[in-house]
Amino acid sequence: MPPLTTRPKAATVGVGRQVILRPAVQKRYVELAEPTLQDQRTDIQRLLDAIDDIEATVSLAAIRTLPTVLRASNFKVTAVFIDQALIDVEPGDTTSIRYGIAYDLGTTTVVATLLDLNTGTPLAVKSMLNKQQPFGADVITRISATMLDPTALGRLRSLAQSTLAELTNEVCDEAGINPAFVYEVALAGNATMTQLLLGIDPEPLGVAPFIMASADYPDVEGSELGIIIHPGAKAVILPSLGAYVGGDIIAGALASGMDRDKRLRLFIDVGTNCEIILGDGEKILATAAPAGPAFEAASIKCGVRAASGAIETVKIVDGDLVIGTIEDALPIGICGSGLVDACACLVQVGLLDHSGRFVNDEIANQIAPQLAPRLLQREGERVFVLTWGGEIGDLNDCVFLTQRDVRELQFAKAAIATGWALLLEEFGVEESEIQQVLLAGSFGSYLSPASTIKIGLVPKLSVLRIISAGNVAGEGAKMTLLSAQERHGATALLDEIEYVELSDRSDFNDKFVDRLAFPK
Amino acid sequence: MPPLTTRPKAATVGVGRQVILRPAVQKRYVELAEPTLQDQRTDIQRLLDAIDDIEATVSLAAIRTLPTVLRASNFKVTAVFIDQALIDVEPGDTTSIRYGIAYDLGTTTVVATLLDLNTGTPLAVKSMLNKQQPFGADVITRISATMLDPTALGRLRSLAQSTLAELTNEVCDEAGINPAFVYEVALAGNATMTQLLLGIDPEPLGVAPFIMASADYPDVEGSELGIIIHPGAKAVILPSLGAYVGGDIIAGALASGMDRDKRLRLFIDVGTNCEIILGDGEKILATAAPAGPAFEAASIKCGVRAASGAIETVKIVDGDLVIGTIEDALPIGICGSGLVDACACLVQVGLLDHSGRFVNDEIANQIAPQLAPRLLQREGERVFVLTWGGEIGDLNDCVFLTQRDVRELQFAKAAIATGWALLLEEFGVEESEIQQVLLAGSFGSYLSPASTIKIGLVPKLSVLRIISAGNVAGEGAKMTLLSAQERHGATALLDEIEYVELSDRSDFNDKFVDRLAFPK
Repeated sequence: MPPLTTRPKAATVGVGRQVILRPAVQKRYVELAEPTLQDQRTDIQRLLDAIDDIEATVSLAAIRTLPTVLRASNFKVTAVFIDQALIDVEPGDTTSIRYGIAYDLGTTTVVATLLDLNTGTPLAVKSMLNKQQPFGADVITRISATMLDPTALGRLRSLAQSTLAELTNEVCDEAGINPAFVYEVALAGNATMTQLLLGIDPEPLGVAPFIMASADYPDVEGSELGIIIHPGAKAVILPSLGAYVGGDIIAGALASGMDRDKRLRLFIDVGTNCEIILGDGEKILATAAPAGPAFEAASIKCGVRAASGAIETVKIVDGDLVIGTIEDALPIGICGSGLVDACACLVQVGLLDHSGRFVNDEIANQIAPQLAPRLLQREGERVFVLTWGGEIGDLNDCVFLTQRDVRELQFAKAAIATGWALLLEEFGVEESEIQQVLLAGSFGSYLSPASTIKIGLVPKLSVLRIISAGNVAGEGAKMTLLSAQERHGATALLDEIEYVELSDRSDFNDKFVDRLAFPK
Repeated sequence: MPPLTTRPKAATVGVGRQVILRPAVQKRYVELAEPTLQDQRTDIQRLLDAIDDIEATVSLAAIRTLPTVLRASNFKVTAVFIDQALIDVEPGDTTSIRYGIAYDLGTTTVVATLLDLNTGTPLAVKSMLNKQQPFGADVITRISATMLDPTALGRLRSLAQSTLAELTNEVCDEAGINPAFVYEVALAGNATMTQLLLGIDPEPLGVAPFIMASADYPDVEGSELGIIIHPGAKAVILPSLGAYVGGDIIAGALASGMDRDKRLRLFIDVGTNCEIILGDGEKILATAAPAGPAFEAASIKCGVRAASGAIETVKIVDGDLVIGTIEDALPIGICGSGLVDACACLVQVGLLDHSGRFVNDEIANQIAPQLAPRLLQREGERVFVLTWGGEIGDLNDCVFLTQRDVRELQFAKAAIATGWALLLEEFGVEESEIQQVLLAGSFGSYLSPASTIKIGLVPKLSVLRIISAGNVAGEGAKMTLLSAQERHGATALLDEIEYVELSDRSDFNDKFVDRLAFPK
């Protein structure tokens, strides 16, 4: 018999995490003696007797094809296991072929990563907008849809499944692999996305007291996710800590090593619902802050989604405005990171005072003569023009920032800052003791660390301590595929993290008002 | 909370077995506190915290409906478990409602029994011919069909499923219960019927060295059996000892208490393939003897299936023949039990000599003057007329027994007798030590014990020691539904019973020839 185990290999995943490759998907190639009247062991017994390092449980599907496969391949076969479960027996030696897919099922964007489980290498990554978009941009509007229309849950489920199915085909196509060799997938999503995908009524998530159906789920079949992969494949659903600290955040915490890094670290997943974790590897606190849609730019007058032409960076260089757009396209509006940059600049230059109010023309001309002409009046409201559409002074086809937009951002960042301030208090530490801030999620990763400090979204620390962590939810999902141990780590996080509920805190509003102003 | 356990009740099942009612299907009614911001436990946690006597595993299906069911029923619900597995949560108190169905999937006849799991009472029993009949009367013809035509396996599977589905509807209709309240079913069938039902290629069962895909199967969903019951219901497949000692025989051994009765007992399931078990509760031997189709009357000239009008009993009263037919209908032919009776009578009266040859007319007139006119010549063969169609002496429309028919029965009974004779030898006991012979199966149960002794099908013992055990396969299936302990007993039998392969015994043919004659 060939050697049964491979030398442990490692892969770098998440925020610099080294993960030893020990996927739950295991293969064993065996060459069996043919049965005789003196050796009438059943086919399955004959197979399992030859595999001495796995105490197997057997599925009907594996038994079903076994007699045919054994005899067609002269009793030389490869047994496919997920943990202890024998899910298939393949003719010949297929030990070099095993794949998995990690999904990050976001409310807005869904990402699939195809992994070679033998090497840990990502073979293809694809993303697309969640097809549930027509039901609303955020989780609350989608939950509301299910409350108003009894058919909405089924339709939302189908749309999520169809999104995953399309991405699955795309990553397999790109890598040129047969989806039947995908034996396991892992999915990270917030509690609402997870419940909608699994067809579970999300209403109790959307109204107080915000109750999940379950924190964790049994492993399910691929068909529950609407994807066509190996018929015996298993889908691992990352567990959720609470209605607003979902599987995506548990995955993020795993990928960021929140359970093992001994430094005091603050993890912020910026979005409509903002999840915040504070921990030092021993004690870990988490909460959710209702930041509202400012970062998705949905409530912003000239706000657009982060797509081609969206203003994503705003700087002041030599007293004048320097605008950066996605793909350097003609500006069509402003997205979340542009909004944060713009406000940070305007506070820094003094056109916004610390209370968040645009200064009057006199002061504007005094402190920033080059920028002052951009401060105009529009429909009784002060606005700041970022890009001119036609003639200077003409507000048609301009991209501008309104006083109300600034207020929206202030509300959002105050909610987040109140969240971490309360966690610091619960933890019994000071802002200055934080050694690292991780900005995570599809919004957080694109924010300029310097600007987040300037507007007070993060604690006032050296800019070097603020890092963009990237798509940590997807990284966490990848880790659970590459290492059965990390998968247990994800479940263990449910016990290790203490959830702090903010919605019934009597001091929340006081602290929130304190945090509305921009830092001096 | 209401009391969680019911006082153990018992039911009489099988061959006088008392079974304590402990079904794997369990229900628990609970009334839960509603969630608050101070108690944000997930729905599933809230439920399981209230059930302290079951360490539950949870299915996605149960979680899926949980939020809706809990809130629609004011948090008063009944949890449905199979063993530890939570399969559903029902609104209100449904603890009095739990049903199961036991199937005996025979090659010829299929029987379904609907059981009330709360009381152990059978509520309805229905039987029908296995719809696979058009593919052949016995397992070998059906296996051959799959070898000749690649679509046959799928079609045979569908036909078995459709047979079970129809019976399921019939028993539920008759009892007036909703099939959604059937939470568990158990199925006993021979190895070929089991593999065909599960869609597993049966070819290796049909050719030496006669290999099963598996001895036992994981519990499967109802849909694998083609039946529509509770979607989370479990189907238990009785395990098989060997290709020709199947789940029906394991069920029969269980129902007969072969693993616990301390008497030396011989269990014979008479049929085309005849299964024989010899045991004393400590040591248990089993084998299969290829009896051929004589008992099914398929190879008998005037043979018919055991249906209305079949001659099922033959006696000689005051020197004349007394014929009994099924349903007292006009005789249309002879079935297995009639064949055994007829030969036994003719041997006893001397019209058949002990070698199995019809005597000549002279001797016939001498020893049985009333019966002698029934001994005629037909197409160069001696025949004995059981019933006259028209005029005496006219063979048209008669039911008669031919010399070849007698030979067929001799071959069949010699195969069986050789089987138990070899088991006795292996066991190291004498024929006379046997304390009970159980005649089982759809053929065996209808044979006259006295006649089986006369033809030498069973050992020469007092007729009181030969008992008809009835449909023990179905009884065994019922027991596994009523008692989780008995279910483990069925699996344990696989280890307790030692299989003796006859097909490679060098002394089989010698012993077989010795057993061809009728006993003196």
